[in-house]
Amino acid sequence: MNKKDIILTGDRPTGPLHLGHYVGSLVNRVKLQETAEQYIMIADVQALTDNFSNPQKVHENVLEVALDYLAVGIDPLKSTLLIQSLLSAIPELTLYYMNLVTVARLSRNPTVKNEIQQKGFGESLPVGFFTYPINQAADITAFKATIVPVGDDQAPMIEQTNEIVRSFNRIYQTDVLVEAKAVISKCPRLPGIDGKSKMSKSLNNAIFLKDSADDLAKKVKSMYTDPTHLKVEDPGKIERNTVFEYLDVFGSDKNKVMELKAQYQAGGLGDMKVKMYLLDELNAFLEPIRKRRAEFEKDKAMVLKMILSGTKKAQEVTQKTLHEVKTAMHLIY
Amino acid sequence: MNKKDIILTGDRPTGPLHLGHYVGSLVNRVKLQETAEQYIMIADVQALTDNFSNPQKVHENVLEVALDYLAVGIDPLKSTLLIQSLLSAIPELTLYYMNLVTVARLSRNPTVKNEIQQKGFGESLPVGFFTYPINQAADITAFKATIVPVGDDQAPMIEQTNEIVRSFNRIYQTDVLVEAKAVISKCPRLPGIDGKSKMSKSLNNAIFLKDSADDLAKKVKSMYTDPTHLKVEDPGKIERNTVFEYLDVFGSDKNKVMELKAQYQAGGLGDMKVKMYLLDELNAFLEPIRKRRAEFEKDKAMVLKMILSGTKKAQEVTQKTLHEVKTAMHLIY
Repeated sequence: MNKKDIILTGDRPTGPLHLGHYVGSLVNRVKLQETAEQYIMIADVQALTDNFSNPQKVHENVLEVALDYLAVGIDPLKSTLLIQSLLSAIPELTLYYMNLVTVARLSRNPTVKNEIQQKGFGESLPVGFFTYPINQAADITAFKATIVPVGDDQAPMIEQTNEIVRSFNRIYQTDVLVEAKAVISKCPRLPGIDGKSKMSKSLNNAIFLKDSADDLAKKVKSMYTDPTHLKVEDPGKIERNTVFEYLDVFGSDKNKVMELKAQYQAGGLGDMKVKMYLLDELNAFLEPIRKRRAEFEKDKAMVLKMILSGTKKAQEVTQKTLHEVKTAMHLIY
Repeated sequence: MNKKDIILTGDRPTGPLHLGHYVGSLVNRVKLQETAEQYIMIADVQALTDNFSNPQKVHENVLEVALDYLAVGIDPLKSTLLIQSLLSAIPELTLYYMNLVTVARLSRNPTVKNEIQQKGFGESLPVGFFTYPINQAADITAFKATIVPVGDDQAPMIEQTNEIVRSFNRIYQTDVLVEAKAVISKCPRLPGIDGKSKMSKSLNNAIFLKDSADDLAKKVKSMYTDPTHLKVEDPGKIERNTVFEYLDVFGSDKNKVMELKAQYQAGGLGDMKVKMYLLDELNAFLEPIRKRRAEFEKDKAMVLKMILSGTKKAQEVTQKTLHEVKTAMHLIY
């Protein structure tokens, strides 16, 4: 990636960010802000598509998510932080793009199909949720993003975006819209502390970046290990053992981790001992993040000002795209 | 209706307005502007939902429709004329309302169902067309319209709007949105000159308000009458005889029309003679409209300025509503 790359990324403000977010995207964003033009969207409008009856929650988490960003080292001078609902260009683009996508095509989107099933909408599927890939295409194209970092299940969303880009440019004989490249995270998904599935607030298996040392200790102690490893002297499995999976990611001393693994497999190493080691490592990792967060929390008004200033820049960029789009559509009077 | 009533009405700029528009709505608007607060929307965004590959046509017809409005006596000092695509509050409202309507509910809308069938979309139904009732709800509620004049097939659209109003006010515990009343036109639909169905540009059976006297003469001469009335001396039917249907509406001398009807039914009155009488009456009706149009056509820049000034007022009104909506949704930062 080079300076010319424009990255759009972001999160839905439905809860504080956790280690899964860190490993899956935040660590990358901290790197990428050095070389690319990076927009980080706090996607409150998208969060409302399945939280529309709980807007207070979404509102509160906008600032929470921003604090998490700043805490992990996202620098508002290098990345543009923005609030989605303040960009009126995006709903306008969404509406125009809706003419270019058929209901049948939208129904075939595998990501949306899966999510609809997971969330059990059934007959009560809201139009806003059904059509959110088009809204997301508006997000991406409004910034003329060339790179969109995604999870492996999100690739069809970028395909849908690029279909819209090609349709639009062909129908309106223009080149104002730009295709984006999905960059799929190489990092394996961090399991939740229950070892069952990916870390997620709603599954109640997450370690949050803002967790206190006490909360962290409780969570690490309850982590899923090898359920057949009952006595210290028994040999244990390290495969699908959440504690070792976390050590692979957060262990600062790779040799020490290898040693512990060998000992655990041979027998003679208790779960609690490994957990205490992991706890130390996680605390060492999280402590500077907690400290930075505490600093920013002292002046939330300043944090809001930072996001609003990023949002203003984003407004200018997206209004410029909208103007180009409307010019191509003969909608300038 | 009283001064407190807020009316939203308008047309899709897909072609010049015709006698059907006049009888069905324009004549009413000219009256209503004296007593109510009337917004007349040139709905270019909605026109694009099934004309997205022909934006030039939509663009050109914005001014044509405005000229027709002014020609029939709509007074920009009494009615607010506005261009839909310049109101960014409407797409925003549309997106928020999409969370409150299910895909199943939208699929049941009888108006949309009929139109989808009529237009033969099949598998290629665009999302924009499928969801346009939600966009229309945004139009209506953005102005807090209390009265929406509609054709009898459009009543379900207002029902959909009011469902959204009630859902929104309930979920967000507010009363910012206002229910609208559908006022169904009492005027029977004017048939096209082919006598087959309602007058419509796309059916090529329309008499346009801007038709020249020559064009009008050709159209009136080709009008559908009683197909069994072959010789002048034969008795003719006046039921479903388009010429007499038009005379019922546009005949200035009701006694004379009654006389002609009796003569026609008895036999001894030729079609061409009645048509010439209708032509005179229509010319008498259209001539002042043509003259006013010719005056305004001399300064199209001034006409555009008029619409843009109305649009500015509409922007203020709709932005105010949007702000109230976003406040209720905790989307103010």
